[in-house]
Amino acid sequence: MDVSPSPPPAAAATPPILALLTDFGTADGYPGVMHGVILGHAPTARIVHLSHEVPAQDIVAGAWLLHTAWRSFPLGTIFVCVVDPGVGGARRALACAVDGRYFVGPDNGLFSYVYADGTLGVVVQLDNPRYHLGGGSATFHGRDIFAPCAAHLANGTPLAVLGSPVDAATLVTFALPQPVWQGATLLAHVTHIDRFGNLLTDVAPPLTAGVLAAPQVAAQIGAAQVTARGRTFGDGAPDTPLLLADSSGHLAIAVRNGSAAALLGVTRGAEVALHGVPHDAS
Amino acid sequence: MDVSPSPPPAAAATPPILALLTDFGTADGYPGVMHGVILGHAPTARIVHLSHEVPAQDIVAGAWLLHTAWRSFPLGTIFVCVVDPGVGGARRALACAVDGRYFVGPDNGLFSYVYADGTLGVVVQLDNPRYHLGGGSATFHGRDIFAPCAAHLANGTPLAVLGSPVDAATLVTFALPQPVWQGATLLAHVTHIDRFGNLLTDVAPPLTAGVLAAPQVAAQIGAAQVTARGRTFGDGAPDTPLLLADSSGHLAIAVRNGSAAALLGVTRGAEVALHGVPHDAS
Amino acid sequence: MDVSPSPPPAAAATPPILALLTDFGTADGYPGVMHGVILGHAPTARIVHLSHEVPAQDIVAGAWLLHTAWRSFPLGTIFVCVVDPGVGGARRALACAVDGRYFVGPDNGLFSYVYADGTLGVVVQLDNPRYHLGGGSATFHGRDIFAPCAAHLANGTPLAVLGSPVDAATLVTFALPQPVWQGATLLAHVTHIDRFGNLLTDVAPPLTAGVLAAPQVAAQIGAAQVTARGRTFGDGAPDTPLLLADSSGHLAIAVRNGSAAALLGVTRGAEVALHGVPHDAS
Repeated sequence: MDVSPSPPPAAAATPPILALLTDFGTADGYPGVMHGVILGHAPTARIVHLSHEVPAQDIVAGAWLLHTAWRSFPLGTIFVCVVDPGVGGARRALACAVDGRYFVGPDNGLFSYVYADGTLGVVVQLDNPRYHLGGGSATFHGRDIFAPCAAHLANGTPLAVLGSPVDAATLVTFALPQPVWQGATLLAHVTHIDRFGNLLTDVAPPLTAGVLAAPQVAAQIGAAQVTARGRTFGDGAPDTPLLLADSSGHLAIAVRNGSAAALLGVTRGAEVALHGVPHDAS
Repeated sequence: MDVSPSPPPAAAATPPILALLTDFGTADGYPGVMHGVILGHAPTARIVHLSHEVPAQDIVAGAWLLHTAWRSFPLGTIFVCVVDPGVGGARRALACAVDGRYFVGPDNGLFSYVYADGTLGVVVQLDNPRYHLGGGSATFHGRDIFAPCAAHLANGTPLAVLGSPVDAATLVTFALPQPVWQGATLLAHVTHIDRFGNLLTDVAPPLTAGVLAAPQVAAQIGAAQVTARGRTFGDGAPDTPLLLADSSGHLAIAVRNGSAAALLGVTRGAEVALHGVPHDAS
Repeated sequence: MDVSPSPPPAAAATPPILALLTDFGTADGYPGVMHGVILGHAPTARIVHLSHEVPAQDIVAGAWLLHTAWRSFPLGTIFVCVVDPGVGGARRALACAVDGRYFVGPDNGLFSYVYADGTLGVVVQLDNPRYHLGGGSATFHGRDIFAPCAAHLANGTPLAVLGSPVDAATLVTFALPQPVWQGATLLAHVTHIDRFGNLLTDVAPPLTAGVLAAPQVAAQIGAAQVTARGRTFGDGAPDTPLLLADSSGHLAIAVRNGSAAALLGVTRGAEVALHGVPHDAS
């Protein structure tokens, strides 16, 4: 579903890459503590801070961000993802392999897109306390379970040693938003609004290209209608929203040097009714 | 006072770790400049950004964050801490060793908790200009003194070479907040409010366990009374604050999927009157 | 124009340093994706996040930040700078060498200060698609062109291989703000306001020293007049703005433990009329 190209795999001898994604913010030091714990166990690991500003407890937002980003990372990358309102409760702590990368985090839906994007390999529950920090807490598994397990994975400990196998059919997922046909209208949804106010939708490749190639397409959002199309932001006229393919391949609505979200007064989840899209567009 | 477990020390040959803690924010590029200066002197150093969002000039907040975080880092870690409203004035620039880690920063109270958490070793004043940047400023010692001195420390330069010895009795500290008994009431204080609105208090281990184990404990904060207890956030009922031990071991008040700070209208320093705690709880 | 001292060049065998400067913010994961792409191509590269909080599409602000920071980085550092409202349009993608560092980014004025600060060497247009990500987008050249080209540069690919030569006379620049004489008044401008509310101006070395050494200098900003001078922030009286040389060498106005911007109600671009500066001060 994600079209961002995969760079070539790094050679085997290169240091492992761990990419962190959390809703911790950066003010309280929680991501830095995870970084410290990882380096304590895997001193040569390379840490990428993918984002720590997922809205607090917003599993859907974290899942989306991961969806648009993970294929840009080299094979072997270990994603350590902690948006975890159920920390310390019944939800399982997981690690799994998908298309040559690894994903470590809670079993709460955070990997819903990843499971759909690629082919799921081994999945384990991180229940081997030997790979947890001793004396750990019930409230910061990012530090006490996910960081050390990911570091051991980076050091070459196999998934199967970190915990018990998990039946993939039991993994928690949420229903991915999808555009749906309502008669002649393709009803899409705003899945993300970025810093620039660009509106991303759940129209994904190859449907995005079909929408943008339709002779007369119009997107209705609230009271506004968007008919302009472009390749990039600068193709639009000032203060005029336009349809384009965003860098993750999704249909997006943007405004040149401005914020489509502010101009249109739109929040995540808003409906985007697409008129003029042929039924065979995808 | 801090119960977070220490990972095993990294082997001697591993690259040095420098953890940066400042009130610089990340917008103006000041932490990046420190990172660049460090790499210029210690090219293999690993940099952890612990936090750069300490409130401006808030020494107490920076000291608390360091208190809750430092033991999670490997032995040998060098903390470079710059919350420094007196930069360029009479306050001393310091480096010291505590329990196998190093701390570099101003002598203004920022290390008050660290001194109490562990055993202070050598302390020096960073007054050897050979290890400062040439042509430095009076307003950015993070770049001109702390970063290069920390990098030289990472390269193996001994503390005693970086500057003159300091008498530990002369170090600047502030009085650490402490819970106090007022008759049958244990009067605690909110020491930190994190991104999630969790309220941390100055009740530390082992007293935290004593409070949580008391048969009938009630925490009075303003007009609100908190009697629910749990191991983790999800143990609470919706919109109902609960008492728990936070990941640093301190007594905390949290709300499941919500903000205790917003629900209770509390700011840092607020009093938390604990009723029902046995006098021998700690 | 920048007086921050240069650290000694790192030895040739040390890993390459790439410093990233963008207006992407850190919430959406865009800088993390660039980091991942770079590590996919240059696994040993060291990444410094200079800032990702340049105001959206604010080329002038990004250029200023780079101006005040770049000489603090070791020789060989590759700056990857993406404030790029014209991404995917007619503007060229560039890489160039200035005084032993490299600069990669759009040809839109972002390097205006850098060109003036040092001696421009080779400049190329990044038009060799062999060094771009395959299947790239029109909207995220940070990921698809700038990051991979910078990584190849870090790996030793010469500038001339990454693209076609560019005539320096055709580079896009904006007019750098400069203080101007109006009779006996030196009219300066606020070029940047930092997190602390310090006001930086376009008065640069050596003129800064001349202003601060003048027997009777007064700075008029709106209705306020500033006559106090100091070496550092703490030299000022409370709630009283003072003139000082900031860490980049520019004349600045600050308030001890406070915000000059808030106290004086000033925004970027504001005029600062300096009275009492001798005409031969610079």
